[in-house]
Amino acid sequence: MSVITVIGSGVMGSAMSFPARANGHTVRLVGTKLDREIISHARETGCHPTLDRQLPEGIEYYQIEELSSALSGVDLIICGVSSFGVEWFAKDILCLLPDDIPVLSVTKGMFVRPDGTLFSYPSYFSSIDPGRDFCAIGGPCTSYELADLDNTCVAFCGSNMDSLNFMKKLLETDFYHINLTTDIEGLECAVAIKNVYALAVSLAVGLSQKAGEIIHYNSQAALFGQSIREMRKILKLFDFDPDNIVYGAGDLYVTVFGGRTRKIGTLLGKGFSFEAAMKELSGITLESVVIAERVSKAFLTFLSCYDSCKKDFPLLLHIYDIISKNINVDVPWKAFE
Amino acid sequence: MSVITVIGSGVMGSAMSFPARANGHTVRLVGTKLDREIISHARETGCHPTLDRQLPEGIEYYQIEELSSALSGVDLIICGVSSFGVEWFAKDILCLLPDDIPVLSVTKGMFVRPDGTLFSYPSYFSSIDPGRDFCAIGGPCTSYELADLDNTCVAFCGSNMDSLNFMKKLLETDFYHINLTTDIEGLECAVAIKNVYALAVSLAVGLSQKAGEIIHYNSQAALFGQSIREMRKILKLFDFDPDNIVYGAGDLYVTVFGGRTRKIGTLLGKGFSFEAAMKELSGITLESVVIAERVSKAFLTFLSCYDSCKKDFPLLLHIYDIISKNINVDVPWKAFE
Repeated sequence: MSVITVIGSGVMGSAMSFPARANGHTVRLVGTKLDREIISHARETGCHPTLDRQLPEGIEYYQIEELSSALSGVDLIICGVSSFGVEWFAKDILCLLPDDIPVLSVTKGMFVRPDGTLFSYPSYFSSIDPGRDFCAIGGPCTSYELADLDNTCVAFCGSNMDSLNFMKKLLETDFYHINLTTDIEGLECAVAIKNVYALAVSLAVGLSQKAGEIIHYNSQAALFGQSIREMRKILKLFDFDPDNIVYGAGDLYVTVFGGRTRKIGTLLGKGFSFEAAMKELSGITLESVVIAERVSKAFLTFLSCYDSCKKDFPLLLHIYDIISKNINVDVPWKAFE
Repeated sequence: MSVITVIGSGVMGSAMSFPARANGHTVRLVGTKLDREIISHARETGCHPTLDRQLPEGIEYYQIEELSSALSGVDLIICGVSSFGVEWFAKDILCLLPDDIPVLSVTKGMFVRPDGTLFSYPSYFSSIDPGRDFCAIGGPCTSYELADLDNTCVAFCGSNMDSLNFMKKLLETDFYHINLTTDIEGLECAVAIKNVYALAVSLAVGLSQKAGEIIHYNSQAALFGQSIREMRKILKLFDFDPDNIVYGAGDLYVTVFGGRTRKIGTLLGKGFSFEAAMKELSGITLESVVIAERVSKAFLTFLSCYDSCKKDFPLLLHIYDIISKNINVDVPWKAFE
């Protein structure tokens, strides 16, 4: 058995304790400064307040000040922060980690270079701590359902197959199924862009509701199909393995149904402006919206010319216009032909 | 304005009257022998009893004995039969149609050659009536939602771009959006195999329910992702344009949510044997199950060797085993890695 330390005790970081404990590993869950209440509560009750579920027995809980104890004798470190915590993890935490211990990141999203190309969090971490192996998880997995032990198929990506195999051995269970790939940027790109398209597909939910009708699926499926078309084009554009569409499609599916992104897409479809919809949902951290805006803006920069982009990526651009220009939903159906 | 005659007044054939009438065309709806009641009822009330909706104003209704009147001065013929009526249409109807009038088929599905390769209904029709242009509709479209004027994106396929453009001009509306493609076999293959995978994805719905839990999406998304993976492999195997996955994915999405296939998949996931599930749903014509069995069996024949097929298409084979060997659901999750 091994020692696994999870840094960041939000819903996804904490949910990783389910496969880890199922395999009998020692699990140390470390809260960030923002997770103080979560750790106190879980220590006392065994329950995670945001995940709203009992965590597995036997987890050791740590506040961030106790990080060095949590790292003693560790075999694997899981970076469990949201995308808002990635820079903190890189700048304040990486320098505290023991040498040679690999890091597996649960965070989805990418950063943007000035030319509009994207780079993954593992690449970003490597640029700061080049001696360490960084891997990341992509594919369809909501934390709540992983905690319910629902069968979940993900992919771990990294540049070192030995590290990937090591992580798979530690975390694979009869409900958590792990593919391995060395195409880090391709996988991360596929699962980052799905944020844009989950917003897009859920517009149809709101459009149905606005029309006072029962929920319809033809229009959702039309937006889903167009999403797959544009995601494939994006993967091609950046020379990533087109097979990553498998993870992108599964991730899009689960996000449309299981995620918070659906809420904002539905409000937009019902006729709320982006500003009004964000206000309505105030208090909910819409990480996906931040990623959607970042990614769609990056593609615009990369493609330079708005009009050529409009032709090839009409749905992406519509989402960009909604988010950044506060325009109302008016799905460009004819542009999909 | 043109004259459009729809032969077969089931739900999909009849739903085509919505875009056709929206564009002001004369629409003649002809029932088959099995549609006698539908035509009588619609003639009297304007309501389609199976579609359970009022049909557009101004449709002319015909019983099959009145076919020759319905064909007088026709510009486009729509073949509206289900896959169970395709051979009847080919053998009894084609010879009655006026020369040079193109046929657009709404029927999804394929036939199988002895070597396990598939061929589309347009190819089959062409082999019997080689002088005529046959086109077909693929992509996500349930009849009920088309009748509700939900935004719907489909693809028309055919070998003659002039015929395709003619049909698009006749039927495109502000809610019915039409792509055109000359890759008949690729499109038809993508939308035929989705029947196998819609059954597969909905297994997860039943598995969730069996476990007494709320519906989960991680497992559905895992099966959806694996479906996309196998569908892409099938398109590659037969040298079809991989872009057809766009229509396959959209069609899979709508079938999982809007179709009857979900009902049988859910029962199977809950623990019913295939025989018991079919008995439970007796009275419902499960066209999709027939197509699923036919297509999965064809791939097995084509690939010859069950074991190699199991490696590349574990989900397809599991569905085949459930349908044809009456085995219980036991999703091969680890085979997806």
